[in-house]
Amino acid sequence: MIRVGINGYGTIGKRVADAVAAQDDMELVGVAKTRPNFEAETAVSKGYPLYAAIEERLPLFEDAGIDVAGGVEDLVEASDVVVDACPSGIGAENKSMYDEYDTPALYQGGEDADLVDVSFNARSNFAEAEGADHVRVVSCNTTGLSRLLAPLQEEYGVKKARVTLVRRGGDPGQTGRGPINDILPNPVTLPSHHGPDVNTIFPDLNIDTLGMKVPATLMHTHSVNVQLEAVPTAEEVRELLGAESRLFLVPEKYAIDGAGKLKEFAMDHGRPRADIWENCIWDQSISMEDDDLYLFQAIHQESDVVPENVDAIRAVLGAADREESMTRTDDAMGVGF
Amino acid sequence: MIRVGINGYGTIGKRVADAVAAQDDMELVGVAKTRPNFEAETAVSKGYPLYAAIEERLPLFEDAGIDVAGGVEDLVEASDVVVDACPSGIGAENKSMYDEYDTPALYQGGEDADLVDVSFNARSNFAEAEGADHVRVVSCNTTGLSRLLAPLQEEYGVKKARVTLVRRGGDPGQTGRGPINDILPNPVTLPSHHGPDVNTIFPDLNIDTLGMKVPATLMHTHSVNVQLEAVPTAEEVRELLGAESRLFLVPEKYAIDGAGKLKEFAMDHGRPRADIWENCIWDQSISMEDDDLYLFQAIHQESDVVPENVDAIRAVLGAADREESMTRTDDAMGVGF
Repeated sequence: MIRVGINGYGTIGKRVADAVAAQDDMELVGVAKTRPNFEAETAVSKGYPLYAAIEERLPLFEDAGIDVAGGVEDLVEASDVVVDACPSGIGAENKSMYDEYDTPALYQGGEDADLVDVSFNARSNFAEAEGADHVRVVSCNTTGLSRLLAPLQEEYGVKKARVTLVRRGGDPGQTGRGPINDILPNPVTLPSHHGPDVNTIFPDLNIDTLGMKVPATLMHTHSVNVQLEAVPTAEEVRELLGAESRLFLVPEKYAIDGAGKLKEFAMDHGRPRADIWENCIWDQSISMEDDDLYLFQAIHQESDVVPENVDAIRAVLGAADREESMTRTDDAMGVGF
Repeated sequence: MIRVGINGYGTIGKRVADAVAAQDDMELVGVAKTRPNFEAETAVSKGYPLYAAIEERLPLFEDAGIDVAGGVEDLVEASDVVVDACPSGIGAENKSMYDEYDTPALYQGGEDADLVDVSFNARSNFAEAEGADHVRVVSCNTTGLSRLLAPLQEEYGVKKARVTLVRRGGDPGQTGRGPINDILPNPVTLPSHHGPDVNTIFPDLNIDTLGMKVPATLMHTHSVNVQLEAVPTAEEVRELLGAESRLFLVPEKYAIDGAGKLKEFAMDHGRPRADIWENCIWDQSISMEDDDLYLFQAIHQESDVVPENVDAIRAVLGAADREESMTRTDDAMGVGF
């Protein structure tokens, strides 16, 4: 059994904790949290051992009547791998602690690429993470783009990708964020960070990305153009993408027009927290114009990286190859509609 | 003096009426309206003769205490040109009436291209409208794209344009429209109507467009890619576009991040109804990557076609050439920041 610790129990951490707990080759040692809010209560009620991410705050948990198993260093020491799901920038501060206990660490996409040995996407570069001490699971959008580009690159070759990412302004719980009633080029300058971030996975891929922010909270939506070297039909692209386990081709007959109905669909399927781990690609949108492939895909910012984190655990330890790990992760979590 | 009648006094009609009234070579014969709402009151208070667009409704205006100069056919008969600013589809129903009185008519972009002899954008094909009986001033988005593509096509040649139009869900007054908190591929299939509509102005231009709808009301925003034949620097593109009277390059120093601040800026400049007649192109966004030009532009859906309607009036009558008309229109309206 792989002993896994999770440092940071917010949006990503709590989801990765559930996904790890569902794997039969992994044991969740515990989760570390900075404060005793509603999420700490939930961790306790699920039976996850709780550690104080900041040791001086131990009394806060005691005051709240929450039993704590120890400080975060105890968790790191007891784990074969730590998933760092702390807010952007805190992972970098934690790095020396992971080194001290010689525990391999996985960081999230908010950390800088040069903090780590390898940036990771299961479908695209699983094997590169083996033996690494520090691995970064790329962000939700970069994960979504990598999953899509990997089969296209392998099958047809990518001449150039041009993507406009229409991003949700904030998650549903991030009540202080905007915009309200506006469409913001964000950043105004080019490229957005997503293109260079995709290049941490595919170093030689020619990609330009533009970012925007809009008043929505549910999912990001990408307007994708990929100019291909070999030119398939739209139907062939549909077949290629449809065969990928983490790409969901939204059928026309479902009459799903946006993220709201996608989330309804996920809830109807009993998905925990209405999570959508797959890229949602509108089947009808897949079009070829000369050598230009176009499509729309929606990306659930809170959850698409969760199966990737689970795979990265096996990858750093060399505990499975790509196909075995992805299948195992997907089966245990219920990935695929 | 060119005698101009306006049939339809809603979002576009009322703005065109004001713009026509401001031209010293035009006389506003009157405006036709279907019902005596707040806009009818405003027309009367501005001294615009009001005509009943549906003659059977004359009593409604009398009941509301509004003096009416006659029915719409009187207006058409008394005009040298009629601007039809009725809701989409009504223009087509009105066509035979304009023919009956032998009055040239200008329609809006919501009508089908094959209703008319010529689709029109002042910068791109002014001269083609001369002598035409039926001319369509293309929609706000097509106007915005045509203004941008015309100088690029002339100066560098366009290999291919790929544009994602992130559209406002509805105007501020269209309180029944959505989406709320969603990002909709719209249409899901490709291309959106904008590409083919641009081809009514530039028949041979290679363009693919994708449309989306988001919860915003103020302006549309385009993520634009234009692959050019001859490759300029970004600075050269800035100079080319900056010289166009209806393209406003939003300077970095203004710190304008979206449509909200653009509208504030317009209001601070005393613009009627906070209108922005110009394409708003973020100067910083203008980038070249190999032969790919990228930029973001915002388009004010309620007003960018207004100067185009004024120019189309002179164009159909052969009353001025392109440069003379555009300068005259812009000077009288105050186009250009």
